[in-house]
Amino acid sequence: MSGGSSQFKTVGLIGRQGSPGVVDSLDAVIACLQRSGAGILMEDRTVALNGQWSGLECAPRAHLGERCDLIIVVGGDGSLLGVGRDLAHAQVPVLGINRGGLGFLADIAPKRIHGQLSAVLAGEHRVEDHFLLVASVRRRGEEIMRSPALNDVVVNPGSMARMMEFSLAVDGDFVYDQRSDGLIVASPTGSTAYALSAGGPIMHPSLDAIVIVPMYPHTLTSRPLVVRGDSSICVTLGPVDQAQVSCDSQVNFELESGDRIRIEKYEAPLRLVYTFGHSFYESCRSKLDWATRLGGQE
Amino acid sequence: MSGGSSQFKTVGLIGRQGSPGVVDSLDAVIACLQRSGAGILMEDRTVALNGQWSGLECAPRAHLGERCDLIIVVGGDGSLLGVGRDLAHAQVPVLGINRGGLGFLADIAPKRIHGQLSAVLAGEHRVEDHFLLVASVRRRGEEIMRSPALNDVVVNPGSMARMMEFSLAVDGDFVYDQRSDGLIVASPTGSTAYALSAGGPIMHPSLDAIVIVPMYPHTLTSRPLVVRGDSSICVTLGPVDQAQVSCDSQVNFELESGDRIRIEKYEAPLRLVYTFGHSFYESCRSKLDWATRLGGQE
Amino acid sequence: MSGGSSQFKTVGLIGRQGSPGVVDSLDAVIACLQRSGAGILMEDRTVALNGQWSGLECAPRAHLGERCDLIIVVGGDGSLLGVGRDLAHAQVPVLGINRGGLGFLADIAPKRIHGQLSAVLAGEHRVEDHFLLVASVRRRGEEIMRSPALNDVVVNPGSMARMMEFSLAVDGDFVYDQRSDGLIVASPTGSTAYALSAGGPIMHPSLDAIVIVPMYPHTLTSRPLVVRGDSSICVTLGPVDQAQVSCDSQVNFELESGDRIRIEKYEAPLRLVYTFGHSFYESCRSKLDWATRLGGQE
Amino acid sequence: MSGGSSQFKTVGLIGRQGSPGVVDSLDAVIACLQRSGAGILMEDRTVALNGQWSGLECAPRAHLGERCDLIIVVGGDGSLLGVGRDLAHAQVPVLGINRGGLGFLADIAPKRIHGQLSAVLAGEHRVEDHFLLVASVRRRGEEIMRSPALNDVVVNPGSMARMMEFSLAVDGDFVYDQRSDGLIVASPTGSTAYALSAGGPIMHPSLDAIVIVPMYPHTLTSRPLVVRGDSSICVTLGPVDQAQVSCDSQVNFELESGDRIRIEKYEAPLRLVYTFGHSFYESCRSKLDWATRLGGQE
Repeated sequence: MSGGSSQFKTVGLIGRQGSPGVVDSLDAVIACLQRSGAGILMEDRTVALNGQWSGLECAPRAHLGERCDLIIVVGGDGSLLGVGRDLAHAQVPVLGINRGGLGFLADIAPKRIHGQLSAVLAGEHRVEDHFLLVASVRRRGEEIMRSPALNDVVVNPGSMARMMEFSLAVDGDFVYDQRSDGLIVASPTGSTAYALSAGGPIMHPSLDAIVIVPMYPHTLTSRPLVVRGDSSICVTLGPVDQAQVSCDSQVNFELESGDRIRIEKYEAPLRLVYTFGHSFYESCRSKLDWATRLGGQE
Repeated sequence: MSGGSSQFKTVGLIGRQGSPGVVDSLDAVIACLQRSGAGILMEDRTVALNGQWSGLECAPRAHLGERCDLIIVVGGDGSLLGVGRDLAHAQVPVLGINRGGLGFLADIAPKRIHGQLSAVLAGEHRVEDHFLLVASVRRRGEEIMRSPALNDVVVNPGSMARMMEFSLAVDGDFVYDQRSDGLIVASPTGSTAYALSAGGPIMHPSLDAIVIVPMYPHTLTSRPLVVRGDSSICVTLGPVDQAQVSCDSQVNFELESGDRIRIEKYEAPLRLVYTFGHSFYESCRSKLDWATRLGGQE
Repeated sequence: MSGGSSQFKTVGLIGRQGSPGVVDSLDAVIACLQRSGAGILMEDRTVALNGQWSGLECAPRAHLGERCDLIIVVGGDGSLLGVGRDLAHAQVPVLGINRGGLGFLADIAPKRIHGQLSAVLAGEHRVEDHFLLVASVRRRGEEIMRSPALNDVVVNPGSMARMMEFSLAVDGDFVYDQRSDGLIVASPTGSTAYALSAGGPIMHPSLDAIVIVPMYPHTLTSRPLVVRGDSSICVTLGPVDQAQVSCDSQVNFELESGDRIRIEKYEAPLRLVYTFGHSFYESCRSKLDWATRLGGQE
Repeated sequence: MSGGSSQFKTVGLIGRQGSPGVVDSLDAVIACLQRSGAGILMEDRTVALNGQWSGLECAPRAHLGERCDLIIVVGGDGSLLGVGRDLAHAQVPVLGINRGGLGFLADIAPKRIHGQLSAVLAGEHRVEDHFLLVASVRRRGEEIMRSPALNDVVVNPGSMARMMEFSLAVDGDFVYDQRSDGLIVASPTGSTAYALSAGGPIMHPSLDAIVIVPMYPHTLTSRPLVVRGDSSICVTLGPVDQAQVSCDSQVNFELESGDRIRIEKYEAPLRLVYTFGHSFYESCRSKLDWATRLGGQE
């Protein structure tokens, strides 16, 4: 219980905004960190969630990457998407505290902060790299947008009730022209999110692959396509009234006819920290209600 | 070749706007009608497609329903959707001339106008009723929108990249709460259109049933649901930033949180005229590339 | 608690073989029937499940249909399939007691036998007709097999790991030639069973429709097809080494090349008894884990 | 046209049995080889297809691997499956001549043998490694079966109309217990074959991954799962009446309750020879009818 037990010298703290319970979880995390002797650096927006934290040192999110040895995010898989995009390049390990339900990314439940976080700080953990994608848009030969995405890059008409036409190439090879509601390009991490609802396969997080899922294609034989992780995927828009590219459904950018969207692996992976108990397939069983030991059905 | 052969006294003519080839097909239709002794009443917007038609009698689309015994639409399945919504209540038989590819609704190919239309006018045809849906929206107890739809009614977030929440009831029975990209409610006629891309079943046009297809539902076990044709389907929106209801992807209406969208069978069906040779399954085989006589594959 | 409360004079009893717990449920049913003053006629195979029932009157299953006013089946949806095929033609109402999990057909849970069965006997129930299919096989012009099916008729290669070829017609109209693992033809009742795993839609039990689901078709555009309940579906086999038709996966019959399998609605429906509380959609929500009231997911 | 142009000294020849046209294609191949100066070694079963070949040297298939520098297979993708399983370990490049339709594996059309085969022999080709799987069965601790598979390993009940129960583990991690019609485990090469009909994704041939596709699972959320190519996949059977494991639907083996089937990458890949013009996506477009240049649909 004495100081000095933490393997991490400075720990950054980020909390989800507008979410009840996050303050309590953060308090538990702070207590645990102080016991372990780790220094704390809180994100400035997070410090504002609770007046009692005004004594803690804080900094903008971008600085956390440079100054911390570990970043703890309280708020579930959704919050980790933003942190992943913002801080992956800094290569600091990131640990997620979920909000009560098992997450694919946020491994520790609020009521287990004391036991599990202490163990993690003492070195009982493993780091799993989750690669991100990066989407860039070229218009008339110039790059006008660039954003990483942890889960997926979605190209679609800005509005529903209208199809779009585009051409797909992978590594310079023409794949098809398609008329559809759009295209989802997902990392293994994203394969259990939106791409799964759209009919894509589940991909193990350690797989070096990207899945391309057409959205309600006019051609029924257009099926999810899994390509190598080092592939360069290029979508060239046909004539469109309206279209957009969306990273993790959180960063949106308006497109025009003829825009060329390139999607590739991002330069740096998100270094996720998991407890030893974590299992990808257990998350699947929990989230997807997969069976364990089949009962006496008829 | 003498007059008087037409079973239809007055025939209305509607052509698709902005589509090359429509004028030629209409000319062929006009020649055929004149030979058969039928009177011609052209839609006013259609007459404007060709200066040489200025001598033909014309009227707004709405009047065609009252004054004609048959309405001929040149332009493919897409054009028939609008005519169906506008004129189904008038109960006039409608015949579609397609634009070269076999349609589910528009039965006669441009190059066969002479032979097949003459036969139809002489009585060699059958009429197939295609029921429409009608969508109505209630906000704070008041009906603020009402529109028929021949293919489908789609409720969705106005923009993609954002899910919506709603509650579904059929005939007053609660079905489920859902978080998804929206819901497609389709007639048998619409089952081979957008609903098919979204994973719905093909329904024979004579079936008295409606299919409800969830769009990329968060709950993977939400599957297409087929209910009776006389069902009343009610979608109640949860809190939404933005949402819309769309009839045949052609009529759109903005929705608000709490809006209640009711979808039912419309009061009158579209009375479609088909040549004797028409077969629904042949349209499927042609459009969906279904096999006939399997070849020597291994 | 006094006699004479039962609306049904003679009640037949059928229990699932080889299933622990069935004897206890049957004892509870017997006690309830005796209190209500109803006569009991037990299936002869069921009476053998418990030596203490030797004093009860019994008869072969086939006789139960003629002599009873109600038949109670203990054992879940699977047991009701056999009873449905065997006794639907007798038109006696049938009530199912499940084995602990909510069934689509077997409505009463073992622990609720006392309260709910008493209510049913006193008249608090409704009867819902579930139509059956009937499959018949013609070989060289002669009918050589005929069997009803409550859920589905499946035509497939007797062994997996081999495809089959056949031709499908509905009401005499050619639909397609297909190379696949077979075909599932399901009633609305069967639409939530095997056909659902195979990608078919859920059909409301009151719908007058039949769904045809191709099994792993070579042609990816072959999709589930819903036709009217009065349709006649005809499958003609191509050259096959081995094939079979299966009714409810319980009655199997070997087929030969060129055999013609006809599937239609059976002459009589199964008259299922439900408590007033029963709801089809509640069964769906329970079995398929559909959501009610969406929680605070991110 | 003079000898000596072939880069391959001895070329093995294998033809599909019982397939008209194969003899003609083989004659064209033989002529081309003789012109190029390559030695010919024909499979003994193939030599028997045509009396006029009795002067050619022949050997059992197994010897072709040791003695040849290239093996040419006439007969389509199906024939290449068997050759792949039999000869992959020999590491000889294999070239496929198809039977008229574009294949994923057999690249050269019969009418193009002269031009394309000459080019290949002269060195204008590339070699693409396609990894195989290997399935092995352990019963009571002993390995009792072992077979490679180029496309897929399928574990299923020997007969349809009956489900099976099994437990799945990947790299020693428990994945789920499943009740279904079986499991397809496919290589990238096999992802466009049976696994595709079963709902699996298309995987690029160069991807180092294996896909696991559940067949009509009782649990609707069991979805295709893509794991790393170096994974060890283990299926442990529950109590079964009958079950089998099938490699490429060509090699079948009967299973018993409790059998443990392990599926991994095989020790050696099939070294497939392609002309420079070959494109995986072109094969997809041709086989799956994917669109190129979208036309004027409405």
